Amino acid sequence: MASNLSFILNKPNSVTFAERPVPTLTSPHDVLVAINYTGICGSDVHYWVHGAIGHFVVKDPMVLGHESAGTVVSVGSGVTTLKAGDRVALEPGYPCRRCEACLGGTYNLCPDMVFAATPPYDGTLTGFWRAPADFCYKLPPNVSLQEGALIEPLAVGVHIVKQARVKPGQSVVVMGAGPVGLLCAAVARAFGATKVVSVDIVPEKLEFAKGYAATHTYLSQRVSAEENAKALIAAADLGAGADAVIDASGAEPSIQAALHVVRTGGTYVQGGMGKADITFPIMALCLKEVTARGSFRYGSGDYKLAIELVAAGRVDVKKLVDGVVAFKDAEEAFKKVKEGKVIKILIAGPNEKVEGALDTTVDEKAAAAAPAVGSTGCC
Amino acid sequence: MASNLSFILNKPNSVTFAERPVPTLTSPHDVLVAINYTGICGSDVHYWVHGAIGHFVVKDPMVLGHESAGTVVSVGSGVTTLKAGDRVALEPGYPCRRCEACLGGTYNLCPDMVFAATPPYDGTLTGFWRAPADFCYKLPPNVSLQEGALIEPLAVGVHIVKQARVKPGQSVVVMGAGPVGLLCAAVARAFGATKVVSVDIVPEKLEFAKGYAATHTYLSQRVSAEENAKALIAAADLGAGADAVIDASGAEPSIQAALHVVRTGGTYVQGGMGKADITFPIMALCLKEVTARGSFRYGSGDYKLAIELVAAGRVDVKKLVDGVVAFKDAEEAFKKVKEGKVIKILIAGPNEKVEGALDTTVDEKAAAAAPAVGSTGCC
Amino acid sequence: MASNLSFILNKPNSVTFAERPVPTLTSPHDVLVAINYTGICGSDVHYWVHGAIGHFVVKDPMVLGHESAGTVVSVGSGVTTLKAGDRVALEPGYPCRRCEACLGGTYNLCPDMVFAATPPYDGTLTGFWRAPADFCYKLPPNVSLQEGALIEPLAVGVHIVKQARVKPGQSVVVMGAGPVGLLCAAVARAFGATKVVSVDIVPEKLEFAKGYAATHTYLSQRVSAEENAKALIAAADLGAGADAVIDASGAEPSIQAALHVVRTGGTYVQGGMGKADITFPIMALCLKEVTARGSFRYGSGDYKLAIELVAAGRVDVKKLVDGVVAFKDAEEAFKKVKEGKVIKILIAGPNEKVEGALDTTVDEKAAAAAPAVGSTGCC
Amino acid sequence: MASNLSFILNKPNSVTFAERPVPTLTSPHDVLVAINYTGICGSDVHYWVHGAIGHFVVKDPMVLGHESAGTVVSVGSGVTTLKAGDRVALEPGYPCRRCEACLGGTYNLCPDMVFAATPPYDGTLTGFWRAPADFCYKLPPNVSLQEGALIEPLAVGVHIVKQARVKPGQSVVVMGAGPVGLLCAAVARAFGATKVVSVDIVPEKLEFAKGYAATHTYLSQRVSAEENAKALIAAADLGAGADAVIDASGAEPSIQAALHVVRTGGTYVQGGMGKADITFPIMALCLKEVTARGSFRYGSGDYKLAIELVAAGRVDVKKLVDGVVAFKDAEEAFKKVKEGKVIKILIAGPNEKVEGALDTTVDEKAAAAAPAVGSTGCC
Repeated sequence: MASNLSFILNKPNSVTFAERPVPTLTSPHDVLVAINYTGICGSDVHYWVHGAIGHFVVKDPMVLGHESAGTVVSVGSGVTTLKAGDRVALEPGYPCRRCEACLGGTYNLCPDMVFAATPPYDGTLTGFWRAPADFCYKLPPNVSLQEGALIEPLAVGVHIVKQARVKPGQSVVVMGAGPVGLLCAAVARAFGATKVVSVDIVPEKLEFAKGYAATHTYLSQRVSAEENAKALIAAADLGAGADAVIDASGAEPSIQAALHVVRTGGTYVQGGMGKADITFPIMALCLKEVTARGSFRYGSGDYKLAIELVAAGRVDVKKLVDGVVAFKDAEEAFKKVKEGKVIKILIAGPNEKVEGALDTTVDEKAAAAAPAVGSTGCC
Repeated sequence: MASNLSFILNKPNSVTFAERPVPTLTSPHDVLVAINYTGICGSDVHYWVHGAIGHFVVKDPMVLGHESAGTVVSVGSGVTTLKAGDRVALEPGYPCRRCEACLGGTYNLCPDMVFAATPPYDGTLTGFWRAPADFCYKLPPNVSLQEGALIEPLAVGVHIVKQARVKPGQSVVVMGAGPVGLLCAAVARAFGATKVVSVDIVPEKLEFAKGYAATHTYLSQRVSAEENAKALIAAADLGAGADAVIDASGAEPSIQAALHVVRTGGTYVQGGMGKADITFPIMALCLKEVTARGSFRYGSGDYKLAIELVAAGRVDVKKLVDGVVAFKDAEEAFKKVKEGKVIKILIAGPNEKVEGALDTTVDEKAAAAAPAVGSTGCC
Repeated sequence: MASNLSFILNKPNSVTFAERPVPTLTSPHDVLVAINYTGICGSDVHYWVHGAIGHFVVKDPMVLGHESAGTVVSVGSGVTTLKAGDRVALEPGYPCRRCEACLGGTYNLCPDMVFAATPPYDGTLTGFWRAPADFCYKLPPNVSLQEGALIEPLAVGVHIVKQARVKPGQSVVVMGAGPVGLLCAAVARAFGATKVVSVDIVPEKLEFAKGYAATHTYLSQRVSAEENAKALIAAADLGAGADAVIDASGAEPSIQAALHVVRTGGTYVQGGMGKADITFPIMALCLKEVTARGSFRYGSGDYKLAIELVAAGRVDVKKLVDGVVAFKDAEEAFKKVKEGKVIKILIAGPNEKVEGALDTTVDEKAAAAAPAVGSTGCC
Repeated sequence: MASNLSFILNKPNSVTFAERPVPTLTSPHDVLVAINYTGICGSDVHYWVHGAIGHFVVKDPMVLGHESAGTVVSVGSGVTTLKAGDRVALEPGYPCRRCEACLGGTYNLCPDMVFAATPPYDGTLTGFWRAPADFCYKLPPNVSLQEGALIEPLAVGVHIVKQARVKPGQSVVVMGAGPVGLLCAAVARAFGATKVVSVDIVPEKLEFAKGYAATHTYLSQRVSAEENAKALIAAADLGAGADAVIDASGAEPSIQAALHVVRTGGTYVQGGMGKADITFPIMALCLKEVTARGSFRYGSGDYKLAIELVAAGRVDVKKLVDGVVAFKDAEEAFKKVKEGKVIKILIAGPNEKVEGALDTTVDEKAAAAAPAVGSTGCC
């Protein structure tokens, strides 16, 4: 069998490549998948730089990566839905299936979740990956494997927008125009929002957002939360406030402004990760009867819907891809993401050839998109 | 017609009694009600002391009071549901009935709400009150007018517990054991919660709470929010946390602890009023996918349910009443509430005789309850 | 003031035109609207032919019509949202605003609803119409008055699709391809349904549906409900059944098939009117835990969303209009609708000139659409 | 190890006792349970008499029974929540845990469910039963094993009442006063319903219902559904109709009346099994915007809540037990249930001694209850 070279974090800022044993199927419900492409997530970079996120600490060497698509190599005896050769998007977290959260339809809240590249579990920047068949989602013919690697962050956006209960005709404000913020904006549009306002502190990001999914943008100013909220509402003509506000930034000033932007009776979702404790306008939540929800990863139906949105042409994920690098250049790709020069880079699997780098369609769009986000290009 | 003596706040700490014109019915849907009893709310006391709550400022003399029950005196030509002599609980806020909030079933969020004793609108510490018939709720034969005056704060509790979506079998933690906190605990029990934990910093209040509706109590300590949360969870054996946590205190440390007490996937409701901005554990909300909701006054169906809970004996409001004073002693009653010596005092209407003060049943229970809350008695 | 000529049903199959007094504003919240265009609904035709629908019986002469758009002529003293000259879609039912249904956000279920052209209340096929300002919805600049007359049936479709809780990515089957069925299909698409199957017994209607909003169509056969369901599921590749099935036909065989088409855990909505009692597969509902809901007219937010869907180009209502006739030709238009030769005809108001009949855009599309539905044309 | 004698249905009306091999644990998550008590369900009797229910046909000999409580004998290596000696209520259906229904929190709708005593799967009238640990629910100290055997039908009632979304203060009508109907009434009370009306055609059943959980009863008459509905509404003073109506009878006339009893905007739940197709008042559902839901078995959280309701004393299941018979008398017990002479009989496990038959508390209550339901007694 081919290489199972893996990209391993040993300690902060120290990575190595090493061959790992190819996994064997231990359950009749498992499948073995050859990884084709993997995107880099902010959390991957955070582990690489800091060796920890909150109380998740990398103690032993850990394979990075969890945004992947691959091709089925073999299937367990009980698998009827997949066969060798099927192209799949991988949902990289495997719940216990037995706790109250799992049985109740919120497996993303399972306390015993095994999640790729969250210590102590290895990730998907490797050659072969074993997964339960029901967490491998077959890609329709018109969805490429490169798009498949974007299904993971798109599922994050789908889950956030579901938590916001976005309905047709509503106005939605998205704080932050990074990959997840952009995808939230696109999903909100697909859910029928007629007004989607992207907010950021970087003008180039807003420029990209406008060409991507936002109907309006707002550049945050160094003023009070109330003043930013007032100016934002005026700029996007939101009347009594937005029906839903999504934070995809994790930034304290964004969250504060968000609570002043949301209308009475509206919804706020905390999607972005940031400081554990912040100054928060709690009386705005109380007096306006705002519903605030957290959003954590993705759960039941999110991957399926993410794939359908791409297949139906309602969300364009290719536009976010700046380029594809060979597996050996993984660390270089991490650097580019850390420097903020790109939206999304894909790393080809160790057994994948990277010739033209991007599939044709991506190529064209990326060419157009790249300058807009100040990308230096990566291939 | 009898006296329409009113209890009027002129400026902070300055009240007077004055005769006001008896209201006339201006709409065929209105009724005129003679006020029998009025409870004192924390907001009444706050206006009395400070002359303002947030941006609501008392500029002109304003009649205080909004927790009232009364007897119908006359009805408009279009009223079919009430007649003179009917005993009613008064819902003291009248929405516009025409905005999106009103037509959408959330009239408590109506931006044009006229609310008693919220400037510039006069309150119910007066002789006669004009109200739309559908905001006057007939009391069943087994509910007294004194109990009727407690329906308002009970409706506040009903609305909060509804916002918390409390379901049978759940565990509910209530921060604060003042009148609203106590009523939230009682309503949570009536909604089927099997564990209800009252939390406060005053041991006497917790003692009363335990005899009232709480299955458990917890005395907050001067430790970190996480430590209080851990100790609370252990004390009430809440396992992975409470299904719902309600803040009826408005206190920053309570709110912080609350977010650490609520379980993953649980619900938090901000019912208490306090500082506009506080330090808030936003990542706890995010990572646990907590749903947080504000609760503001009461709305559709809340009064009706509050009355049914009292009529069915599922919530005992009499137990909260420390005594009844004559109208002329209204200021004295305000002082007692301000000093925290009582849970709830009722002020008789200006045309009401106060002989035995409390109806018999109240008398007995209050006698038992009084020492528990350190009340000095008021009659 | 101009003519207030009205189109009046005296008894079955007997109509007359007569001048009626122009309404005067009786409430400060009312506005007076000059009617520009009115569509014909199946219920109008039913009253015309039978003089009754169920227990609603036309006893006294009644003005017909309730699908109208008009222009504001004057406004009451309390109206701040509208002014003379504003173009509006009329919501023709006025609830009491005081009952539990109204206060609870379901005013369409108000037992005291006053509804146009439902006996004993007059309808909108008249010159001038008085309405509460909040039931007159301002049309955006890019929505014509002819489109405005279609907002009423579109709101019916919006309400039905809301009752079906259609979510992005879902499959929706719509029984019946008349005006409401077509609009349901279009709204389902706008709500993000990726598969929308129109079902009818008339091939021409299905042909139109396919060019309109349906992704798939199915021609019902004279076989058992189970067999039709099986064939429908196969034809549209619905797998384990449709996420939602909407009946917009009222036909017994459609309803029966619907319950066999909906998937386990799916939703069924009864939108179409028909026989009071039918043979119904109740065990299919039970064992599959189907949620079935009725849908009656439209309520909170439905008109607003309907207008936004048209303004945003997400639902094309012009395509359904076969033509516009002068007010004097109203009876002729009723005949065409009765004969099933058209989808939707508009009747111009008595003070409206009908020169080019249709606004340009409508003209073109109608030309293309007309043959598909076997219309003979009407101008 | 002790006897694994099993009670086996060979073909309609033909049962035998036979020793079966004691199951071995095949998964680390399984436990082995010794059966203490098993109740008889209507479906058990139906299989016994007819050999089939719908398309479920008993082709090979099948062990009957699925309402059981038992004692843990041994646990798999991965089980941390149970240990030998624990007393448990058994949830007798094991879902696949991998399909959309399972991952979405509705495992009762899993198409691959393995359910005890539903062909081809054996039931629990046996000595030892193997089950996943998470489907064995530990009984609190104050809940007996005999009560434990009633958790299964109580969970059926819990699920039905949840499907009805019963809320505090509501009125609930329950069609049918058999075991499930009685339990639905009790659960509705526990959910806070203030009015619970039991309906049946057998006066003795209604007499029992009144002493059990119903606040009102109604004896169905041989009149039209509309007339029965009108009389029922009058008898229970339901005003504009019941907030929720539950059918626990499966009888066509009950279902028809139910739709006329439910209020506008109310809820109907089909819990009872009966004819596949019936005459149904579909326009009542449509025009009143009734929400109708099916209810199938029980799912996430239902067993847990059922046990809490018993432990908290909110539902009394002992009152329904007429007696306990030895395992060897199982067929005799089936006969009594078939004859309708009892509400619920328990069959002791083959290794269980039956001395005093009922635990003390049951004894007393059953003594009082027995005559009320015309029971001949069974011990």
